[in-house]
Amino acid sequence: MLNEITTSQHIVKYNGLTFIEEEDNIAVESALTIILDGEEFATMVCTPSKLKELVVGFLASEGVIRVFQDILSIQIDEGKGFAYVELVKKQSNQKNFHSKRFIGSCCGKGRQFYFHNDVMTAKTILTKLTITPEHCHQLMTQLQESSVEFQETGGVHNAALCTKDGIVISRTDIGRHNALDKLFGYCLIHKISLKDKILAFSGRISSEVLLKAAKIGVGIILSKSAPTNLALSLAEDLGITAVGFIRRRGFNVYTHQERIQG
Amino acid sequence: MLNEITTSQHIVKYNGLTFIEEEDNIAVESALTIILDGEEFATMVCTPSKLKELVVGFLASEGVIRVFQDILSIQIDEGKGFAYVELVKKQSNQKNFHSKRFIGSCCGKGRQFYFHNDVMTAKTILTKLTITPEHCHQLMTQLQESSVEFQETGGVHNAALCTKDGIVISRTDIGRHNALDKLFGYCLIHKISLKDKILAFSGRISSEVLLKAAKIGVGIILSKSAPTNLALSLAEDLGITAVGFIRRRGFNVYTHQERIQG
Repeated sequence: MLNEITTSQHIVKYNGLTFIEEEDNIAVESALTIILDGEEFATMVCTPSKLKELVVGFLASEGVIRVFQDILSIQIDEGKGFAYVELVKKQSNQKNFHSKRFIGSCCGKGRQFYFHNDVMTAKTILTKLTITPEHCHQLMTQLQESSVEFQETGGVHNAALCTKDGIVISRTDIGRHNALDKLFGYCLIHKISLKDKILAFSGRISSEVLLKAAKIGVGIILSKSAPTNLALSLAEDLGITAVGFIRRRGFNVYTHQERIQG
Repeated sequence: MLNEITTSQHIVKYNGLTFIEEEDNIAVESALTIILDGEEFATMVCTPSKLKELVVGFLASEGVIRVFQDILSIQIDEGKGFAYVELVKKQSNQKNFHSKRFIGSCCGKGRQFYFHNDVMTAKTILTKLTITPEHCHQLMTQLQESSVEFQETGGVHNAALCTKDGIVISRTDIGRHNALDKLFGYCLIHKISLKDKILAFSGRISSEVLLKAAKIGVGIILSKSAPTNLALSLAEDLGITAVGFIRRRGFNVYTHQERIQG
């Protein structure tokens, strides 16, 4: 079952008339604990695939690393669900900021960041990239067609890094933020240029998702679902074009409409 | 905007032909920081409604309190997004367990708990309650009809505590776990008996959601969406009936089928 995204499981199906026993595909969920320089840093539940990318993306998202080269070594024990990471420079006081509230943000001035790590890592996006409404529809359709796991289980989120020509890479996870961290990790490990990239995402655009987009460095996020007002406030401020409710007929552009050109 | 679940926002809609400016309802998301006995305990983003219930449910879920009476005082500053909680008994070493991995669970023996607080708070459910397939459909339909906010924004999760006769109380949040914590808090504050209760939930049944159900103390969880294998393993072990993919025609019973009787 390890390192698989779905697993077969015995279930009882009610078809409206009677109960039938059958096998069904279920999304796999397992725990991963990151041990950073010998100390427990965080435990997450995730889809056990692309764990190295997940760890790299998570650490970058939390502000522990800036580039992949900040990591001296990374070893993953998939069986037990542990990732052992050694940094080039030990950051013993890093933890003090981890998930602490950024109090300075509460005065109604400046950016609505709520966590210290976001202040350190979310970037303002300056890309001149523009796309057409057709690109929005095509990329969202590709995202949905690309996920065999979603079609099988209905239980995972998908995130894809795209250019105007289509999906470059897509990642799957039961956790929406994990799918984005896997993409982020991939970009850092492979030093992917983000100037011409678009993020297509299966889930809602919450503040956490929007901040991940800013950390990855993409200027356009496409979703078939809804945003929150805090995500839109951050998108406006960080220079990100947020497009939601991409359905067959149309969609909504919430922020920085200049990148969507008819 | 405070204490509202949705807010009106200016957006640009693409209708397939042209861009039109209009007002749309967006789900509100804001930060809440819990200060426990004078120290920062946790910050979450949430829908700013029923914050007292959210704080009480979250603290119980984390194992900080067992009953509402463990709280000496609770004051909520909605404007700034802070909750100040004083406990009857100060628990200075509580934080050491908070979100730490429960290493004992990794050996393949016993329950698949991954966090210390779950070990302390998730209960095995022994209720003799049974329901029919019709109850499953009726309660899920009621859940979907009950949420004006979802219909308006598409951006929130709903959780409801039900009896066979219908929904007793429902709660809404942009975060799936928050909606469940609000229900949990309501049950603790009002000392609701859970023997005859059923949980109806709009989202997927992940391990986190299943553990919340166990902590609340319900024996049946109904969802229109998919479960994960870890959630089902926990449901099997904790005595919870997990029913998913409740759609017009039928549904899947994943665990403890004895409570669903045709």
